[in-house]
Amino acid sequence: MGLNRIGEFGFIRRMTRGGLVRPDGVLKAVGDDAAVFQSDPDRVSLVTTDLLVERIHFLRHHISGRDLGHKALAVNLSDIAAMGGVPREAFISIGIPDDCPLDYLDAFYEGMKALADRYKVNLLGGDTTGSRADLIVNIAVIGLADPWQIRYRDTARPGDRVCVTGNLGDSRAGLHLLLKELPVETDEFKGLLSAHLRPEPAIHEGLFLADAEGVHALIDVSDGLSSDLMHILEQSEVGGRIEAEKLPVSPDLRLFCRRFGFDPVDWALAGGEDYVLLCTLAPDRAPTIIEDFSARFGRPLCDIGEITATGKPILIRDGSPANLHRSGWNHFPLT
Amino acid sequence: MGLNRIGEFGFIRRMTRGGLVRPDGVLKAVGDDAAVFQSDPDRVSLVTTDLLVERIHFLRHHISGRDLGHKALAVNLSDIAAMGGVPREAFISIGIPDDCPLDYLDAFYEGMKALADRYKVNLLGGDTTGSRADLIVNIAVIGLADPWQIRYRDTARPGDRVCVTGNLGDSRAGLHLLLKELPVETDEFKGLLSAHLRPEPAIHEGLFLADAEGVHALIDVSDGLSSDLMHILEQSEVGGRIEAEKLPVSPDLRLFCRRFGFDPVDWALAGGEDYVLLCTLAPDRAPTIIEDFSARFGRPLCDIGEITATGKPILIRDGSPANLHRSGWNHFPLT
Repeated sequence: MGLNRIGEFGFIRRMTRGGLVRPDGVLKAVGDDAAVFQSDPDRVSLVTTDLLVERIHFLRHHISGRDLGHKALAVNLSDIAAMGGVPREAFISIGIPDDCPLDYLDAFYEGMKALADRYKVNLLGGDTTGSRADLIVNIAVIGLADPWQIRYRDTARPGDRVCVTGNLGDSRAGLHLLLKELPVETDEFKGLLSAHLRPEPAIHEGLFLADAEGVHALIDVSDGLSSDLMHILEQSEVGGRIEAEKLPVSPDLRLFCRRFGFDPVDWALAGGEDYVLLCTLAPDRAPTIIEDFSARFGRPLCDIGEITATGKPILIRDGSPANLHRSGWNHFPLT
Repeated sequence: MGLNRIGEFGFIRRMTRGGLVRPDGVLKAVGDDAAVFQSDPDRVSLVTTDLLVERIHFLRHHISGRDLGHKALAVNLSDIAAMGGVPREAFISIGIPDDCPLDYLDAFYEGMKALADRYKVNLLGGDTTGSRADLIVNIAVIGLADPWQIRYRDTARPGDRVCVTGNLGDSRAGLHLLLKELPVETDEFKGLLSAHLRPEPAIHEGLFLADAEGVHALIDVSDGLSSDLMHILEQSEVGGRIEAEKLPVSPDLRLFCRRFGFDPVDWALAGGEDYVLLCTLAPDRAPTIIEDFSARFGRPLCDIGEITATGKPILIRDGSPANLHRSGWNHFPLT
């Protein structure tokens, strides 16, 4: 695997090079028993962690090392974005099977460092070890936020508008293209593949929403819109009404669904790994927030429905209501 | 595996129950996109993370769920101890294969929570997912320390005394007993097995050393004494002279070596997973520190040699010097 040649410590030296992009306040990065850095007395710490296991979350022959490195970090940054925080330090654990070439690992760290660099996230440490069968990546990210700016899942209120910051279903369609090896032209569905392989964490959008008065609940769409909406509804003890026609669906996803005979609404609701943000807005503040968002980001904050007092999630389609089910990804059973 | 029955979210609820043992300053534990807690303005943050992969770090039929939970957390707490810090928050990622019974997982969390409770460490979050082949555990621990009390690896000075806080080689011998299924009486080598399966993190010893004037370098012995000593020597750019006769070896390890024809010095030097602390002490302060340690803990802080200016690691045995090699565990190649 090439690792025997350079050894564990050689590998660690190589992989951590260039990982310290924001040295202020860092007393010790990689190389001791723990990393040491100053906390910010005026802000609180946010911590998230995600474990990616080969053959569960990714197939090595379907994702380049560079994309995997990008994505493994992006999903964690997305969690920090969903709290309204700024990501600061990342810790990378990697379990490497014998058959994983050094080139793949080099590309993995390149992809991760490129993303970390863009958001000024330090790669401050981690753990490097072997694995018998699967490539394993666990990343823990520490972020900071002003305590009054943090947005939780349990703070939606009846009457709130429900909005999302980007298109839904693209990533799941990209995965479908990869897994089924569907006959498509090169580059025809590049947008769907890229949504799946290189999701962009909505850090700036999260900070914008954290800063806006009237944003009540906030979550990132990782399991699928219906599933993540359900987290907000259950934890806030409210209901919700989503309008199928308002779900933002990309032209690529419409084309994909037409071509292969799928319903775009299904994919938008149950997709998963979208990594857009889902938020609820005080109804009197919603128009201003939506307008400001559009001015700031040059694309819409899409109003897709409202929070109700009923406790029930409803989907309105063609004028008729139906129960909305948690149809997003569930990590169990494993398929 | 029983998980299908209770589902991912049922599992998470069950496993995180009782994980918040020190709620002060915790704004959000498990259940949102990230955990949220206050940092301490007067102290700095320490972060360590360790990945344990089945068939690399443990064999499921050789370690109970309870012991694995204990050990997975203990190895991280040991890293915080080796910086002179207090562990505060833990984040548990777990990848669960189909054949892992719920009972094993219940016991795993019990073992972890019992240890966390003793050191007032919150289990604040993590990630739960599947795994195709191996049980995977990644733990990240955040600790706190006064910046002037932190002890690093690169601060040993020529003339320092080299000391360890406990016996060496027991854990490796315990592993050997398990792997080779040697013919021994029940309970005959309980101490060796327990050193391997339930290592005790030297948190109190680390805080004692961090508080003592004259403690220069500090590391925990995870890869084996010779290997971890080498980290101090290389990073401090010094040499060292270890006296074989002074290495602390338990009566159990002596008996084990006599019985099976091994050399206790080899096991003490190259053992690994001892999780005692290795430190270097200013020579004029060493007698006091050693005396105070013994008064405080009721067992010796063992003086095993000294730091030299030569840059070379030497082992003195039967009056003769020999080169000391990094003979401790190396995670590559994987055997």
